Amino acid sequence: MSYTAPLKDMLFDIQHLAGLEQIARLPGFEEAGLETAQAVLEECAKFNEGVVAPLNVEGDRNPSSWKDGRVTTTPGFREAYRQYREGGWQGLQHPQDFGGQGLPKTIGAACTEMLNSANLSFALCPLLTDGAIEALITAASDEVKAVYLEKLVTGEWTGTMNLTEPQAGSDLAQVRTRAEPQPDGTYKVFGTKIFITYGEHDMADNIVHLVLARIPGAPEGVKGISLFVVPKFLVNADGSKGARNDVQCVSIEHKLGIKASPTAVLQFGDAGGATGYLVGQENRGLEYMFIMMNAARYAVGVQGIAVSERAYQKAVEYARDRVQSRPVDGSVNGPAPIIVHPDVRRMLMTMRAITEGCRAMACVAAAAYDAAHHHPDPGARKQNQAFYEFLVPLVKGYSTESSIEVASLGVQVHGGMGFIEETGAAQYYRDARILTIYEGTTAIQANDLVGRKTARDGGQTAQAIAAQIEQTEGELGRSGSAEAKAVAKRLSAARKAFLDVVGFVVQQGKGSPNAVFAGSVPYLMLAGNLVAGWQLARALLVAQDLLATGEDADFLRAKIATARFYADHVLARVPGLRDSIVEGGESVTALPLEAF
Amino acid sequence: MSYTAPLKDMLFDIQHLAGLEQIARLPGFEEAGLETAQAVLEECAKFNEGVVAPLNVEGDRNPSSWKDGRVTTTPGFREAYRQYREGGWQGLQHPQDFGGQGLPKTIGAACTEMLNSANLSFALCPLLTDGAIEALITAASDEVKAVYLEKLVTGEWTGTMNLTEPQAGSDLAQVRTRAEPQPDGTYKVFGTKIFITYGEHDMADNIVHLVLARIPGAPEGVKGISLFVVPKFLVNADGSKGARNDVQCVSIEHKLGIKASPTAVLQFGDAGGATGYLVGQENRGLEYMFIMMNAARYAVGVQGIAVSERAYQKAVEYARDRVQSRPVDGSVNGPAPIIVHPDVRRMLMTMRAITEGCRAMACVAAAAYDAAHHHPDPGARKQNQAFYEFLVPLVKGYSTESSIEVASLGVQVHGGMGFIEETGAAQYYRDARILTIYEGTTAIQANDLVGRKTARDGGQTAQAIAAQIEQTEGELGRSGSAEAKAVAKRLSAARKAFLDVVGFVVQQGKGSPNAVFAGSVPYLMLAGNLVAGWQLARALLVAQDLLATGEDADFLRAKIATARFYADHVLARVPGLRDSIVEGGESVTALPLEAF
Repeated sequence: MSYTAPLKDMLFDIQHLAGLEQIARLPGFEEAGLETAQAVLEECAKFNEGVVAPLNVEGDRNPSSWKDGRVTTTPGFREAYRQYREGGWQGLQHPQDFGGQGLPKTIGAACTEMLNSANLSFALCPLLTDGAIEALITAASDEVKAVYLEKLVTGEWTGTMNLTEPQAGSDLAQVRTRAEPQPDGTYKVFGTKIFITYGEHDMADNIVHLVLARIPGAPEGVKGISLFVVPKFLVNADGSKGARNDVQCVSIEHKLGIKASPTAVLQFGDAGGATGYLVGQENRGLEYMFIMMNAARYAVGVQGIAVSERAYQKAVEYARDRVQSRPVDGSVNGPAPIIVHPDVRRMLMTMRAITEGCRAMACVAAAAYDAAHHHPDPGARKQNQAFYEFLVPLVKGYSTESSIEVASLGVQVHGGMGFIEETGAAQYYRDARILTIYEGTTAIQANDLVGRKTARDGGQTAQAIAAQIEQTEGELGRSGSAEAKAVAKRLSAARKAFLDVVGFVVQQGKGSPNAVFAGSVPYLMLAGNLVAGWQLARALLVAQDLLATGEDADFLRAKIATARFYADHVLARVPGLRDSIVEGGESVTALPLEAF
Repeated sequence: MSYTAPLKDMLFDIQHLAGLEQIARLPGFEEAGLETAQAVLEECAKFNEGVVAPLNVEGDRNPSSWKDGRVTTTPGFREAYRQYREGGWQGLQHPQDFGGQGLPKTIGAACTEMLNSANLSFALCPLLTDGAIEALITAASDEVKAVYLEKLVTGEWTGTMNLTEPQAGSDLAQVRTRAEPQPDGTYKVFGTKIFITYGEHDMADNIVHLVLARIPGAPEGVKGISLFVVPKFLVNADGSKGARNDVQCVSIEHKLGIKASPTAVLQFGDAGGATGYLVGQENRGLEYMFIMMNAARYAVGVQGIAVSERAYQKAVEYARDRVQSRPVDGSVNGPAPIIVHPDVRRMLMTMRAITEGCRAMACVAAAAYDAAHHHPDPGARKQNQAFYEFLVPLVKGYSTESSIEVASLGVQVHGGMGFIEETGAAQYYRDARILTIYEGTTAIQANDLVGRKTARDGGQTAQAIAAQIEQTEGELGRSGSAEAKAVAKRLSAARKAFLDVVGFVVQQGKGSPNAVFAGSVPYLMLAGNLVAGWQLARALLVAQDLLATGEDADFLRAKIATARFYADHVLARVPGLRDSIVEGGESVTALPLEAF
């Protein structure tokens, strides 16, 4: 059940696909060259492999527990979190002004992956804190920033996102929690929030809840929601911890997976009102919350990659050790390790190719984020922002949907042992299952992709990506290797399918919304599959070039083989999706409601 | 969490796809007409809906437990089993000579589905007993039959299959359990068997273990394995229960799902040897075990359909109740039940179409089984047997792989609530995960499909099926409706893809075994998808014809819409699989072992 960080693959992506050299030329990232990346990633690997990863199974067997409003986390979590905090890991990507290290997301994302591979449940606490930090940096007043930001960036306190209510899951228009203005400028918050990750725990001194609520008289729907900071403990004028606020954890959920991560029901205001502080302006809460959500959505996509990587490593280990049955090609005259059997190999390659493809996609998305925030040229910033925003639903949706497939294959590689909880493969299958749901289900991501990311600009961003892919196809064709040609064939078919679907979405969006949204998740899966495959195709080209230098030949050949496999076995799914989307919209809603 | 048996759909398949009228003309099935089918299915539905289904959640929360060698099943299981036995359900498909009812499998399979929808864990006990009965009928001596068969057919005693050992999972050549001949003609059995479903429990007076073991001096490998009956309690000459045999349950497994079904580790012979009775001839154990396994494989395929149906019903119920978000087409100006949202509809239709498609496939397979065993014409028997045998790996492999997808979609429809164990959707996701593993993993089914079912007859059976499918395409074309045309298009593309793959398997099987077996599971998924889609296409034609009669119009229109959806969204996956199999074999094994 050990974990070894895939440092070589991460650094390959960072250097050759994301182009860290260019990022290190951007203002503010001067220190963030390859040497820094390597040093940070190695340190991060050491910490996660040694401290966090061993707690993963323990968290599953001995989940966080609730008693009388208090949550006790899994034994070992408190101490691991102390080391996480002391290592400065929470501040990695956050501004130096608030105690962070200000590194690019291109580097930070790899660290996020390692933490999540090591322990999805543990990693959720810092993930939520990251979101709170981003929202406060963007929207909060200087006073609020001064009280909370540094404590969050250093990891001394942790953050939460309070969106969901029993009657309002994905539909935030239905939020009912209310915030009544007080004469001193604060608010009294009343309401119930559910599904609050790390809404209560014992790893930090204070918890900073970011809460969506309505101020009396606010407009109905999402335009009347404001964002508030509601700390678990009030903060004294000198910055020290003050009185307990009126927010209580009334229970935590019994879940399918990520059991060590406490999922709280929080009750605000049962004893007169929880004191809250408005973040930014009234009624702009949803906008601010989207800042947190977008950061969190990207991070959840990385969680998908992380759990896939861990499941892959475990399956490979088992497949090497388990001896069973003669090889079909007669190469061994007796039972052999099951990794020699073609179907086991197919499963492992599928797991590997999807994981590497999604990692490459997430890495180039991170680089676009960095350029969008640091590039001196406004045009380049805008272009990178559009690219990043197009990729966020793919990173979130495709990487997480794929992680369920990967974790399920991991169970299958283990055969009967995979179904026995002691083996550990089943935990990944259970843990991964939340990833397509929280921070916006895959359908929510797909709505975003269809509406804001495709239809709104008339398909321009999508077409620009397709044009870049076509360039890669040209390079593959010119390179002349059998692998490159095979990949070019699939990539070209997938790109054309993608363009058909983009055209369909843009043209039919207004007139046939049901048909377009019936294909929204297949479109997301198609686009994610294509972009991941494209990045592996780029990786193949780089690997072919680098092979000439003679170093790392095994790694580079493996990259080429993996890219080829992805094209033959994963990209090959794309044209079928096109047909379902473009020609099958009607049949999705043909059955009348009463016939179900 | 209630369950309603899909009687109308089952009877439609039985009557119109399987052709019960023809089956009722076969010798021995004279009583098994539509009226009988209807009466049996209604009675069966009543029992399973009322008695067995309510215990499903209880079994998950309060699994079978082990203490000092004894297993206590979930509260309520004993009583439900008593009613199952008294209802005569165990004997439904077994010969009247041994106390059964001798009904066709075409009817019995529907009852098996209901029992498994109601409670997968509970249903496993009768499922294993069925297998033991089939093996004993085929292979046992009259003496052994006389002692055990009627007790098993009436359900008074239950049966088990003891194949797996710690070092021998799928690879039975490695079986080490030994059986030493005794002067009185019995054997002393020594060894450890694992993963023994209902290997120990408290629902019946005796347990009849069927055990694979080696007699000293037997040939190595699978040709030296014999089959033994080893009862938990010895049986006195008068048929009454005798002394406890030397077989002990030393533990049961802690599993991901089907928690109420005790999975036992059995220790044979620790106190001098367990008394066993040879079944049939020495060293032919594997052959006999295959009789049990084939019956069990078909039944596990039905388990896949069963859990899919239950997951579908649960998801529909939730989607009707849960109110969330405005419809994208503006048809409601406010939050609506989520079943109106196109992506929820897509998920529900996928669940429904796959479930109905697999049910139709299993139903026609059952009819072929009945004809293969009862048809007076040897040629018809042979043809039906070949068809049935081709379909068994598809029923087992495709229905169960699909059930994981269906159960996962069921969780997704529930959103965050799907991840909370109290909701119940997660149980199906956990339970379904065993189905692609036990009674032969999907890879084992696929090996069977490639080797014994396709390559051995040079693709003849496969091509005969393709020819039948082509006829259906012709009928669809002639019928002229838009739905029929749309289905014909996809069916034709899928059939051609299938023929390409069959050609590839037949031609490359000897020369490139690795490339062929690298595509074996995708071939199974392609073939299962095609045959299920073909049966739904047939159903569409029948439904169009029956619509003219004016009865059951809603059901018939729903069948047409479901068949169309399947073609557009599930059959559409087939051509991509063809490309991966025929053109992607090399890339599966291109990565050297040490590079993983």
